[in-house]
Formats: sequence, structure tokens, C-alpha cells
Amino acid sequence: MKNPLSSDFTIGFLGAGQLARMSAVQAFRYGMQVAVFSDRPEDEPVQFMTPHSYSGSFDDVDSMMEFAKSCDVITLENEFIDSEVLRELRDRSGTPIFPSPESFALIENKRIEKQTFEEAGIPVTPYALIRDQEGLKTFGETHGWPYLLKSSKGGYDGYGNETVQNREEALAAFEKLGGNIGHDILAEAFVDFTHELAVQVARNETGHVVYPCCETVQKNHICVAVKTPAPVPSDVREKAQQLALKATEAIDGKGIFAYEFFLTTGGDVLLNESAPRPHNSGHYSIEGCTTSQFENHIRAVCGLPPGNPSLIKPAAVMINLLGTHKRAAVIENAEEAIAEPGGHLHSYGKLQSKPGRKMAHYTLLGEQLEATYNKAIRLTKQIEI
Amino acid sequence: MKNPLSSDFTIGFLGAGQLARMSAVQAFRYGMQVAVFSDRPEDEPVQFMTPHSYSGSFDDVDSMMEFAKSCDVITLENEFIDSEVLRELRDRSGTPIFPSPESFALIENKRIEKQTFEEAGIPVTPYALIRDQEGLKTFGETHGWPYLLKSSKGGYDGYGNETVQNREEALAAFEKLGGNIGHDILAEAFVDFTHELAVQVARNETGHVVYPCCETVQKNHICVAVKTPAPVPSDVREKAQQLALKATEAIDGKGIFAYEFFLTTGGDVLLNESAPRPHNSGHYSIEGCTTSQFENHIRAVCGLPPGNPSLIKPAAVMINLLGTHKRAAVIENAEEAIAEPGGHLHSYGKLQSKPGRKMAHYTLLGEQLEATYNKAIRLTKQIEI
Repeated sequence: MKNPLSSDFTIGFLGAGQLARMSAVQAFRYGMQVAVFSDRPEDEPVQFMTPHSYSGSFDDVDSMMEFAKSCDVITLENEFIDSEVLRELRDRSGTPIFPSPESFALIENKRIEKQTFEEAGIPVTPYALIRDQEGLKTFGETHGWPYLLKSSKGGYDGYGNETVQNREEALAAFEKLGGNIGHDILAEAFVDFTHELAVQVARNETGHVVYPCCETVQKNHICVAVKTPAPVPSDVREKAQQLALKATEAIDGKGIFAYEFFLTTGGDVLLNESAPRPHNSGHYSIEGCTTSQFENHIRAVCGLPPGNPSLIKPAAVMINLLGTHKRAAVIENAEEAIAEPGGHLHSYGKLQSKPGRKMAHYTLLGEQLEATYNKAIRLTKQIEI
Repeated sequence: MKNPLSSDFTIGFLGAGQLARMSAVQAFRYGMQVAVFSDRPEDEPVQFMTPHSYSGSFDDVDSMMEFAKSCDVITLENEFIDSEVLRELRDRSGTPIFPSPESFALIENKRIEKQTFEEAGIPVTPYALIRDQEGLKTFGETHGWPYLLKSSKGGYDGYGNETVQNREEALAAFEKLGGNIGHDILAEAFVDFTHELAVQVARNETGHVVYPCCETVQKNHICVAVKTPAPVPSDVREKAQQLALKATEAIDGKGIFAYEFFLTTGGDVLLNESAPRPHNSGHYSIEGCTTSQFENHIRAVCGLPPGNPSLIKPAAVMINLLGTHKRAAVIENAEEAIAEPGGHLHSYGKLQSKPGRKMAHYTLLGEQLEATYNKAIRLTKQIEI
């Protein structure tokens, strides 16, 4: 690969949302050019950031070839493109893709992902592939009701997940998720947990770094806040960090990766989900860490040494600012949050808001975690978007 | 002005170089759209960052009108556009320009600038407007040889400045700078100084913040490094900060402003130059301060409250990485600098390098200023561009 610090070096993003946008900002910082391919023709966050914008279908290698050939390296902001498509795109265009299609192949399907990590000795939540009505019943009898049904591919922020209380609900959800038409459906036992944790890892051929273990605060399966470091014993945080690194090694990951864990009531750390990309749980790192997850995303896929992920203050809190109205996007009542020393607002440049849509986030650094969290909540609660 | 946190809010930059580029990155962070107008048709740093790119002449209001009308607010990265042109552009397009044309009018000409600041009670270096051969002689006899001759407009990084040792050199320089064809030429006495200092101020109708006082290390009139806080007594730093704020108030500045001072051998702080824009002396603030000069540039011109300018570590050092070769730009031998914890590389995306051209910079944060400076020098000295 060409020296990524050549000024005509172009990094391409498959996907044009906020994760790519925040990564692209870091690419600019290194003097790079940014190209973007989206499945929407216009008005996506990254499309406003470059003259090099392409669109088409993520399923169609042909439609991505012109984009791919214009790039020196390609990366992704989601995990919904088939690894076979990525492999063909890479091989036909000659442009490297990181994380690699081979890494993607090990995690793109939730069943294969669980197997990959189990084989590496990483504890995962109890699960089974469900093929039919009998399987739905057996899983409930073995692991108890309620449990979760998930599409093996394409789940995101709770979409593609169904909680089922009994056999009737299980059957309805199985059909809703497409189990009856051949989609792989996974059952997952509910785990009694005290905290949901997350860890990011940046890794490439030059080395790796592991971010602090944070707590993700979820409402309705959507992350609403992140507290770093997670308010759990330090040995639990270290355990999650070790597992996150092990998981990244298991898929020979080159890039930035995020792992979500349950800390069970019994004190176990179980891997829940992985993401081969920057992750909402790591947004705090933009100001909170010496090197952000986005900068390390760029560094890792370009072969530059990953940078120090240490916290620069004892506490970092990130609040997701979700849309509150269906309207043209505008952030209102944010003056106090912006004026707060140590407070940082990031808006994603989405033109349209709607209730629950991830529109922006707010990071507050401080000396003490709960006080910082409470202040961040207070400063952001009146914000409307 | 429209709420700047509307996602279709467009900030326009007159000028497309590294100062606009680093400011534009911050505009993206607030979800804004970026438009740029350059006097070069392509390949300027900001032109790679937006689909909204315009070019033409900075002297021709007509050629800037389409750009201006596409923006909600316009700002600048240099001080070379005539304030009358800016005023006409603003009045005809209806788009606000900050810093305002009225502020520009008070500083665009070095003679008027000196008068403005003198009238505000700010000590400046001894100077005189030179009209003829007699004036050249009188200035030398009054203030001693050598002294400096400067174009009243358009000087930058030592260009447009001439050091003259005697009457013959003075006359040659006067003609070289265009004094004989009516250009305003200023003579400035050499000041015996121990340090060159700089301070940034962000100011708008909501308030102001003053950055720490830093030392600029110059070679051949080009800034090669910046040390923050300046290694001078704290009362000297405070004096420079007070004068910088006073100067910003004197021109009713809205935006980010930088001021360069001499600390004389006698202990006086004299204002040397001002810049109504982000400044090389403030690049350290990207990682060194809670809120960078570029973020406060965006905040100030958009009417958002300026953010906390405090240092986040006791010492911040910035090294300018100048071109070392005439070639397509590529940064080589930077691995060690990038891998250093607390070290941050920024490249400006210029396609062509040449010896002495400002291509990139490197910031290193640390606990102790001289040790940090020495380490930064060591880490960057082998870099070639």
C-alpha cells in the first residue's frame, strides 16, 4: 500500500453515516482524501464532506468498482455487506479492504460469530440455531422463558431482535424474522446482568491498543449513555479488556473493533456482540482519550501504529442525543451544554430528525464519574432536536 | 442568523488553505456544511473536503456572489481581501461576514493597525510611514540602523519585509516594496527582545476567552515551533493576555484573533502583529486545550459561546513541519513521532511540497516544557516531506 501520509492518498468509506463522518474527520487530519460510497444517492453525512461521492447498491460489486478503484484503502462503517461481496470487490479492484473480508466472514453471521469466539475460549451468552417450532420449544425449556430471537444477519440497535415470553410469541417472532423462509434465526438466553460493558480494540500489523472498559446505559435496546471507566471492580474491567483483545486476535482483526459484554449477577463477563468498526460506546474517546477510536480506525486500516487510548481525565461520560421531533434537524437549547467547560457537542449533519434517531452526542469530562454523569444528564435533558 | 446547529447551516470560507481546513473540520463536528471560495481553481486543502467549492478572484465581488449566497455565514483564513470588497460582498449578498469588514478596516493596513492599537493604549513597536528618501534617512537616524521596511498590506511570514542596514539598502528595499510607485511603506525599529510571544482571543456577542500566552520560535521570520506556556514570568504572560483582549475589543472583533508580541530586553511587552483568524501560534490548542482555536473560530463567528481555552497538560509544544523537498507531498520517517503517546501529527493535504512550505505540524503534550520541547524536536528532526 502507498504511504498513507501521501497527500493524494484516498481512504474510501463504504457507508456514509455518522461513524464514517467522524472517521473521515480524522482522515482529513492526516492530509488524506476521502471517498464515500453510499446506498443512498445524496444527503448522507459523509456526502457533505467530499467531492468524491459515489452511490449504488451494497449488493452489487459492479456498482462499487469505480469507487473502489479511486481508493488506496477501503474501510466500512457497518457490518451489513456480505463478506463474499467484499472479497470480490477487493480482488477485482485490487484495493485492500480492512477489516478484511476474511475477518468479516468470521463475524457477519451471529451464529458463526458465536462459534468463532467460543472456539477462542471467550465466554458467550447461551444460544442455539433455531430451525423449527420444535427448536423454539426446546430452547425455552432448556434456558427458560423469556428469551431472545435474533436474525443472524443485519441486527442493529435492537432491530431484528424479538423478546419472546412463550411458545406462541416465539412462533410469531420466528416468522416475523423470516425463520420460516429460511433465514438463520438464533435463540439467545436472557442473562441476568448488573452492567452492560464495552471495550474497543485497535489492531494492525504494527501492534494493538485496548481502550478502557466503559459501561453502556441502554433504554429499549438503544444506548443512551456511556460511562468511562465502567463503575465495576477493576478486575472485571481488565477481564473485559483481555477478552476484547482475544476476540480481535481470533478474527485477525485489522482496524477498530468494539465488543459488548454482560457482567452477570454471578460476576461473569460474557461477550454479547461485536462490531468491526467504530462504535457508539467509543464516542467518548474523541475528547476523553489521548487517541480517539476514530483516529485509531484510520491509523489501523492504513497501517500506522495505533495511538495511546488512555483517558485524559478520570471520568468521561457520553450522552446520545436522539431526535425528539420529526422535523428538519436543528439542535435547540444546547447553549448551556456547549458553554460548559469540558463539555463537547458533536452533531452528525443529518438533515432530518425523527424521535429516537441518533442525531448528535455530548461528551463531558470530569474528575468523578457519577457527578460528571449527573451533570451531563442535567445539561442535555432540555435539548431538543 | 439561522441557528448554526441546523444541519443545513453552511459556513463559507474565503481561502482554502490549512487554516480553513482545520476550521472546517470543526464545522463538520457541529454538523454544519462547508463551502469554500478560493482564488485557485482546484487542489487546495479545503477543496478536497466539500462538494461546495467555488473559485474566482478575491478582488471581484461578482465572482464571489454565488458562493456568498450559498452560505449562512462567511469567515476568512487570511487578511488579504480588501475590507471594502468584503463590505460590498456582505451588503449585496446579505450574508454576514465575521470578523466584520469594519474590524478588517481597522487592521488591514499596517499603519492603520498600529494607530488603532496605539489609540487603545497598547504599546507597539516604533514605526513611521515612509514617503521618500528623506524619510528613510530620518528613520534610521532617529531609531538606529538596521531597521525594517514593510509593505503596509500583504505581508506574510516575512514576505514583504526587508531588513535594511543603511541608506543604500533602504532605498533599494523601498523601491522593491513599491514605495516609489505609491505603495504605503512602513519603517519599523528593530526591538531588542528576549522572546517572541503570542496570544489568541476568541470573542463574540456572548463573551470572550483568552488563550494561554505561548512563545513562538522563529527562524528566518518563519515560525518553526511554539512553546506553551511561554517560558517567561507569569506577569509577562498575563500582560500579553490583557493586551490581546484589549486589542480585540479595540477592533470590536468577532471571531478568533492572534497577537504577536515582543518581550523586550527591558521587560516591556510590545504588540508586533495581529491576525484576524486562526494562527500558526495556536495550532497546539487542537490537543493542548480543552477547546481549540479552530473550534472557537467556528463558535465565535456563528454566535455560539466560546469554549474553555485552558491547557489540559502543563506543557504543549508544536513543531512546524516544513517541506524538505520539491516533490509530490509525502511525509516520511514519521513513525516514531506518530507512535509517541501524547504526540499528534496533522498534515494539511497539500499535494505539492517544496522546501520551507508549511505542510504539516506535530504537537506533543507533556508535564515539563523544556523536556517536552526537546523530545518533540528529537521525534521530528528526521521527518522528510
